[in-house]
Amino acid sequence: MKDLESLSASQAIKALSKREIKATDLLLSCLDRIGQRENHVKAWTSLGKENALTRAKELDKGAFKGILHGLPIGVKDLYDTYDLPTSYGSPIYANHYPVTDAVSIALIRQAGGIILGKTVTTELASFKSGPTTNPHNSRHTPGGSSSGSAAAVADFMVPLATGSQTAGSMIRPASYCGVVGFKPSLGKVSIAGVKSLSVSLDTLGCFGRTVEDVGLGVAAMSGDHRLAKIETLHNKPRIAICKTSNWSLAHQETATAMAVARHAAERIAKSTVVDLKLPKSCDDITQVHTRIMLSEMSRSFLFERTHHPKKLSLILSKQINDGAAISYEQYAKDLLFAGNAKSSINALFNDEVDLLIAPSATGEAPDLKDGTGDPVFCREWTLLGLPCININVASGPNGLPVGVQLIAGPGKDHFLLSAARAFVHALPDPTLRDQA
Amino acid sequence: MKDLESLSASQAIKALSKREIKATDLLLSCLDRIGQRENHVKAWTSLGKENALTRAKELDKGAFKGILHGLPIGVKDLYDTYDLPTSYGSPIYANHYPVTDAVSIALIRQAGGIILGKTVTTELASFKSGPTTNPHNSRHTPGGSSSGSAAAVADFMVPLATGSQTAGSMIRPASYCGVVGFKPSLGKVSIAGVKSLSVSLDTLGCFGRTVEDVGLGVAAMSGDHRLAKIETLHNKPRIAICKTSNWSLAHQETATAMAVARHAAERIAKSTVVDLKLPKSCDDITQVHTRIMLSEMSRSFLFERTHHPKKLSLILSKQINDGAAISYEQYAKDLLFAGNAKSSINALFNDEVDLLIAPSATGEAPDLKDGTGDPVFCREWTLLGLPCININVASGPNGLPVGVQLIAGPGKDHFLLSAARAFVHALPDPTLRDQA
Repeated sequence: MKDLESLSASQAIKALSKREIKATDLLLSCLDRIGQRENHVKAWTSLGKENALTRAKELDKGAFKGILHGLPIGVKDLYDTYDLPTSYGSPIYANHYPVTDAVSIALIRQAGGIILGKTVTTELASFKSGPTTNPHNSRHTPGGSSSGSAAAVADFMVPLATGSQTAGSMIRPASYCGVVGFKPSLGKVSIAGVKSLSVSLDTLGCFGRTVEDVGLGVAAMSGDHRLAKIETLHNKPRIAICKTSNWSLAHQETATAMAVARHAAERIAKSTVVDLKLPKSCDDITQVHTRIMLSEMSRSFLFERTHHPKKLSLILSKQINDGAAISYEQYAKDLLFAGNAKSSINALFNDEVDLLIAPSATGEAPDLKDGTGDPVFCREWTLLGLPCININVASGPNGLPVGVQLIAGPGKDHFLLSAARAFVHALPDPTLRDQA
Repeated sequence: MKDLESLSASQAIKALSKREIKATDLLLSCLDRIGQRENHVKAWTSLGKENALTRAKELDKGAFKGILHGLPIGVKDLYDTYDLPTSYGSPIYANHYPVTDAVSIALIRQAGGIILGKTVTTELASFKSGPTTNPHNSRHTPGGSSSGSAAAVADFMVPLATGSQTAGSMIRPASYCGVVGFKPSLGKVSIAGVKSLSVSLDTLGCFGRTVEDVGLGVAAMSGDHRLAKIETLHNKPRIAICKTSNWSLAHQETATAMAVARHAAERIAKSTVVDLKLPKSCDDITQVHTRIMLSEMSRSFLFERTHHPKKLSLILSKQINDGAAISYEQYAKDLLFAGNAKSSINALFNDEVDLLIAPSATGEAPDLKDGTGDPVFCREWTLLGLPCININVASGPNGLPVGVQLIAGPGKDHFLLSAARAFVHALPDPTLRDQA
């Protein structure tokens, strides 16, 4: 009964379903771990201990409730929760209690998940850091905006936590913290009840320590419970490496990670793993993503800008102003560009490739003083709405984790989970294979 | 200075911009009208008189603020407003004050619009009626779910009011009440801050008494201020009539409306107006829409179903249960179907036609006791995400208005406004031409 907090979500669920362990004990183990480590990691904005314990006891007594029965879960403080304060990382919303749960949180609870608390997000999921540190080295950032969720899962405080990505807010912190992060296809999880940055881009997902775990999490959040059971790959996939047009920004450790990933990919691929350049229609896609995001943010945060300008950080105010300066003509042109790029990518995934492998971040987690890191390697995949999973494959000069992202065609979330699990099994370092 | 409430939004804005009339006087005229008529029409859930008057006085004293400067606006009570209670038509949310405005409401205020009050929506924008009656005959329904907004605009209580459509919640009440209703392209207006039914379908727009007015409204709500100035058609459009596969449900007055519409279309079309059947891939599209909506509603309203089951009406509880009974496999299949249907429709609009004309509703507004009417003629266009405008062209056996909807290709909101204005000018009955 010791070290229950180190169980993966899938291990815990198996034990919970057989009543080999109690939800209450798992929860207490997680709370112990939080008690030991929170002073260093600072992953949480609030904990709902009493409610969580009550719920755990109910679940221990009652029937098996669903695919997350008895699992303690961290919720990024960008998601509305009716029983925990929800500040969206902004002083504007200090002590705000929403009247409902976000749709995905109601689904998590229905599946038996126990909402243990809210995790730190950067200010309104933008760039201003919260207090969270990287669990592997507290002088480094956990990444953002889903800082607390990635750090809490990496630090064994909870087996699962929710995140959201508008630029690189899940894949990047997953890479920095060395956990599995799953950003499913755009629209797979309802964004209702999550503070909106950019309706064309906001995508919800989760962090876990294994591929199976993030499948479980997104299964519950979306209602697509088929994702809770990962199928073995029927056919070997066509795999390509896509270093992207931003490759010059990659540090040595990211180059190493991509080389390791290529090696593992060769072992599961149908044929030789090729290098792929995105179609011509995708040139400038990183800049297009940035403009669409900023333009939409300037409207999404108009209320805050009007009523609480002094409670916005300088960096966010500047982003909002930059967004407001983009003409609607330019924004409309960028949306058209995005539509055409999506068509090209669909064709690519139909005709040439099943799985892409691309960098998750420029390198290992930067120093805390340098912010939450650069989302540049995630922007295009977010804009294209493709499902992405970060897998940890190497480490950087400071010994911090470095991941790569596996990317599948639009809507191919099931396949991506299967491919990611096979990929992890093919990794050379046996400790990395724990991510399966 | 009399009868200011009868000015269209565009007329009022012209007079306000030249300072020929005062925002305060326009507001007082609207309030007078509401005072006279609200007992019969019951369009409002709350009025923010004091705030609105304060704002009107500020606007009268200050610089010209934007495209809606000084215009009193009704807001469907599905939209969050920080200064007015927001109940989403449900007793669950009685006396709920959101902490922010919906994004589109913040944009309306930024453009100088004055939020006068909240208008009646059916329960959570579904089928259970509110108290609103049809201004033309109080024994009949105004339609739903945007009941209060359509009725308030039709009754000259406000020149503009916001609405939302997931099945037929804007086009149908616009037809029943005899106003212009504009549901722009899916995603044109950010849905952030509006109670979510179905993230794949929810679309925001507005009601006015002229085509120019709804252009103004959606210009402000979306931030695309180009819509505030309707361009003259450069080329004659290719127009087709699409009676849809539900034509057997159309009453005589809808057949008459379509015949009138065809006649007007002939006068502005490039060549003979043809009858068009949707591509084979669109068969069953009405049923597909219904299943996607119900499936998503069952997740969107999971919180209400879990925490407040007794405060949901029987009809809504049944809808939620019906939705929960649809398998995710079926839902996923339906989403794929919708994607393919969208591709076919894109190709159709590229190759064959610029504008479709279709029924807005089965006939004139039903009796109050029979509910808010059937959205059947709107479901497919909502699912396809196409911009639609209701134009009033005929009347039914009880003398109530009957509209048709004009439909353009995806993203062709500007063109649709131009075509709708030309269409209105081509209508035989001069009084109907006031809708331009």
